Amino acid sequence: MNLHPFDQAMVLQQQPDGSTTGQTSPDYWNMIGPFGGITAAAALNAVLQHPQRLGEPIALTVNFAGAMLPGTYVAQARPARTNRSTQHWIVELLQADDSGTLQVTTTATAVTALRRSTFGGGDQPLPKVPSPAEVPRVHPPAGVEWLARYEMRPVHGAVPLQWDGHEGTDTTTRLWMRDDIPRVLDFCSLAALADVFFPRIWLRRAKRVPLGTVSMTVYFHAGSAELAATGTGFVLGEARAMAFRNGFFDQAAALWNESGLMLCSTHQTVYFKE
Amino acid sequence: MNLHPFDQAMVLQQQPDGSTTGQTSPDYWNMIGPFGGITAAAALNAVLQHPQRLGEPIALTVNFAGAMLPGTYVAQARPARTNRSTQHWIVELLQADDSGTLQVTTTATAVTALRRSTFGGGDQPLPKVPSPAEVPRVHPPAGVEWLARYEMRPVHGAVPLQWDGHEGTDTTTRLWMRDDIPRVLDFCSLAALADVFFPRIWLRRAKRVPLGTVSMTVYFHAGSAELAATGTGFVLGEARAMAFRNGFFDQAAALWNESGLMLCSTHQTVYFKE
Repeated sequence: MNLHPFDQAMVLQQQPDGSTTGQTSPDYWNMIGPFGGITAAAALNAVLQHPQRLGEPIALTVNFAGAMLPGTYVAQARPARTNRSTQHWIVELLQADDSGTLQVTTTATAVTALRRSTFGGGDQPLPKVPSPAEVPRVHPPAGVEWLARYEMRPVHGAVPLQWDGHEGTDTTTRLWMRDDIPRVLDFCSLAALADVFFPRIWLRRAKRVPLGTVSMTVYFHAGSAELAATGTGFVLGEARAMAFRNGFFDQAAALWNESGLMLCSTHQTVYFKE
Repeated sequence: MNLHPFDQAMVLQQQPDGSTTGQTSPDYWNMIGPFGGITAAAALNAVLQHPQRLGEPIALTVNFAGAMLPGTYVAQARPARTNRSTQHWIVELLQADDSGTLQVTTTATAVTALRRSTFGGGDQPLPKVPSPAEVPRVHPPAGVEWLARYEMRPVHGAVPLQWDGHEGTDTTTRLWMRDDIPRVLDFCSLAALADVFFPRIWLRRAKRVPLGTVSMTVYFHAGSAELAATGTGFVLGEARAMAFRNGFFDQAAALWNESGLMLCSTHQTVYFKE
């Protein structure tokens, strides 16, 4: 049986020195490197597969430090501090350079914890949007492989049809999305979905300036049971920018399942040219 | 001449092994440990004072891994990757335990970069609020030392006057704030201001449940010149929660100076009991 492309991308091999190695996935390739979401998932995966891991993810920050090349990467996850019910992780992904020296491509921190039943409430409900079935699917242009791994049904703020440099004021995008081939949601695939939004500055400026995410954070609000209950259903993502200045802009986003549960909130800062 | 309490808290001493040591500050003490904002500032400070540092801060994530005790801490900042115009840092703060073994109390990552002049724009303008002079200053109760280091003028969503457990729906707070004694704003003091908001769950529930910030992120939108121009002026902070569930809630916030420039956006996830 073939593994789902996402599961294939998450395969890690234990090495004698305690580190693990993985392979970059051609299925999730972006233009000049892996889709950022799959790298974020890989960093989290190194924690989740670690034999000393305690609990489930609460927070993940991934910093895209350098280009990843096709091939092998080393994933080093280290529990920097283990408490009774929380654990703090430092993660580095590394690849060998031309001389064989390992160079850091990605740094990350993660917090895992045992969650307990408490007061609960959502202060940002699922936006009023048509159901996924009412929204046509868009088919991305060929040539960017990772886009074909997701079914996307934009409700608001789709990719500009005209790249005429006409500046807008609204940087909000809402879309229904899920893995294609459908796959039951888990922490790693949710972390990847948190990076699916196209760059806010392209929407703001109707201009495809060069860019790259520098750092992203995901706060997990759902536990594994809630992700499993979300199953292969759609996830609504809403993203917007707050400030663009001197080469960097930020993005704030949230993801809900179809029954209105916020699965995660997520933020990133992105480098751009011009 | 006496140093400002904030500058005193940022003093680091270079050690022969390349690490640095600092002292926790009684001036910024919270109930059972340092104010989180001063710890975030300390982690950033370890990067900014590092002799190999390139550029100015773009992103900072600080994870509060374990309790900090009064006294000496070791600050280890390591440039994990240095590119032409960006640099990625891994930071750990450590303290000796009873047996003298260093234990990690704080992990952090930071991105610094050389910023270039580009397109700019703000998509979240300064909220319409009265000027700082029109808003009365609140004087915090005695007993929590760090609160006395800040002048706070709440515009909306102040600390509940009645802790009657009456659940609200609005978790938004807006307040004007600045250092008291006034001090020209810089990256470290801005990082500290990003953690000044009282816990959203106290506002939501009018109930003082035990809690602690687990992880916080700051995206810096202003450079050093813009911070210097902000000077000792007030900063408006706006914070709100998005989701409370199974022991954790998140907070999204932004800080603007009086002329309406967004200085940073900031997010955190917070552990709570009950």
